[in-house]
Amino acid sequence: MIPSIEWTSDNKVKMIDQTLLPHKLEFLELDDYRDVATSIKVMNIRGAPAIGVAAAMGMAIATLEYKDLPKEKFLESMEKAAEIIKNTRPTASNLFWAVDRIWKIIASYPDDPKNLSELVIEEAKLMAQEDITVNKNIGKNGAELLQDGDVILTHCNAGSLATVQYGTALAPVRSAIEQGKKIDVIADETRPRLQGARLTAFELHYDKIPVKVISDTSSGLLMRLRKINKVIVGTDRVTSDAVFNKIGTYLVALAAKDNDIPFYVAAPTSTLSLHETVNDVTIEQRDSTEVSNVLGKVQIVPDGVECLNYAFDITPFRLVTGVITEDGVFTHKELLKRYE
Amino acid sequence: MIPSIEWTSDNKVKMIDQTLLPHKLEFLELDDYRDVATSIKVMNIRGAPAIGVAAAMGMAIATLEYKDLPKEKFLESMEKAAEIIKNTRPTASNLFWAVDRIWKIIASYPDDPKNLSELVIEEAKLMAQEDITVNKNIGKNGAELLQDGDVILTHCNAGSLATVQYGTALAPVRSAIEQGKKIDVIADETRPRLQGARLTAFELHYDKIPVKVISDTSSGLLMRLRKINKVIVGTDRVTSDAVFNKIGTYLVALAAKDNDIPFYVAAPTSTLSLHETVNDVTIEQRDSTEVSNVLGKVQIVPDGVECLNYAFDITPFRLVTGVITEDGVFTHKELLKRYE
Repeated sequence: MIPSIEWTSDNKVKMIDQTLLPHKLEFLELDDYRDVATSIKVMNIRGAPAIGVAAAMGMAIATLEYKDLPKEKFLESMEKAAEIIKNTRPTASNLFWAVDRIWKIIASYPDDPKNLSELVIEEAKLMAQEDITVNKNIGKNGAELLQDGDVILTHCNAGSLATVQYGTALAPVRSAIEQGKKIDVIADETRPRLQGARLTAFELHYDKIPVKVISDTSSGLLMRLRKINKVIVGTDRVTSDAVFNKIGTYLVALAAKDNDIPFYVAAPTSTLSLHETVNDVTIEQRDSTEVSNVLGKVQIVPDGVECLNYAFDITPFRLVTGVITEDGVFTHKELLKRYE
Repeated sequence: MIPSIEWTSDNKVKMIDQTLLPHKLEFLELDDYRDVATSIKVMNIRGAPAIGVAAAMGMAIATLEYKDLPKEKFLESMEKAAEIIKNTRPTASNLFWAVDRIWKIIASYPDDPKNLSELVIEEAKLMAQEDITVNKNIGKNGAELLQDGDVILTHCNAGSLATVQYGTALAPVRSAIEQGKKIDVIADETRPRLQGARLTAFELHYDKIPVKVISDTSSGLLMRLRKINKVIVGTDRVTSDAVFNKIGTYLVALAAKDNDIPFYVAAPTSTLSLHETVNDVTIEQRDSTEVSNVLGKVQIVPDGVECLNYAFDITPFRLVTGVITEDGVFTHKELLKRYE
């Protein structure tokens, strides 16, 4: 398991370029916060927890650029940097959570930009470390739900590559396997960006965990044929009434419900936004060429035909069996009671 | 609207090569039944009604090859040809229906292969003509369900290209538009073979009917957002308890049910197989490279990772609002009563 993102000893942000997977494992090393923002926007790095850490590290890079400015100029420049970083992807709450967490430090010690920069870098590195700890706890809690012989369907990639390391939805799988249970994974390919086929399959195969890929159209039939017996997905934001996750998640949840198959959401508490409801969330619409042109390589739609490309799905809580956080496994009611 | 298949004046089977769409509109002209069988298998032609006519025309081509043989040799050779044609795709009942219908003629007049060949050719041409008439009647019956301003979701291609002409699921759309209603279509791309993105979008755009393409993962959200208000799909086989259609249909039906959106199945009576149940039907499993390698052009799955590729889905009748045949629109109960 390779960390998807880390802070290097020479103060750069190093990340796997996930747009090149599964064919090439290459790394980006960035020392400009604008490039970090772009890497989030074009999805060199993706997955809510990883985006959060990338945003924090982007803020840290910005403090290095601006630390020699006088206090007011520094704050003004940092505000602009925060805006640019926040304006990359609208749905993942970790992005805003991470920038706000860094901003609290900036707001507390604005008088000494130089020392502040070191504090911000330490905070970003701490957030990366915390992410791994949170994921391991999600893994431990989720593993208790898994039995020897289970076949787990997951949608998109909420694995090691979506976090700093270890994953959220895939953490229970990794943990159960560490406990000696035999677990197989089925990965939805996850159109349009194919994170399941490219990333989930890559990271599990890399770590020798058995994985098969299916088209997004196949999950219902496989549940009906009892070739899947549990579903675990990640999330980008949990509101009081619904789970926001990659487009297609709602269909998977409907099929699970119709076949009495448990549907779990792995949600680090950084994704919880329980003061909000579905009406507060903007669903990101991405460029239609992601649909019309597979990975920018094969045009599959005739010239002149428009495509719609909503990136996230809304899954109402009535379809969710349980939410796995770093603190435990919760029903909807329990979750609201614990965190609201 | 171009016929997807026709019998030429010089006794060949002419068909659009649908594997080249939407980029190239090219035709195959075949004069060997083995090539017709291959064209069904590799999906140069696809769609249950079109496959039925292709199979009948393949049988007709075979009679031309064998008509100078003595009676017994002729029958033996025709039996072999029927086997080869039937062994191309296991799920569409039209394939078997068409070969059996041709076989009835062969069985009635086995003594004179020469004249028999002419009869079989006439029957195959008649079946093509009947298909168009059936589709127009499905269109007329289905159009009554559609209102001005409707946005119709369809999955896969059950349009003109899936039939000889006019389509089954798209026939009500064509008919409603001919009546002056404004109808928009949203086409699921339909992985793995992308018949929605390639074929449905092509034929509707070609005929200037408004169409947009979405990833298969998006239908649930669009229904939730009320951007779709009716669903019409085709079918490969209707048993007494379920509708068999392209993989992914079950998920669309679940989403329609969950959002109180009517879900209609356009089913020429040649697809009805009401003496059967789900347990009688083999779900075709196709080559896994259709999933791992999009249209044979972009590999999306890491080397060494297996893919599952079931081609058809099972949609239980409890999710079906109505079945549109050439005779009318029927609920499940009415359908059984009328045709059983």
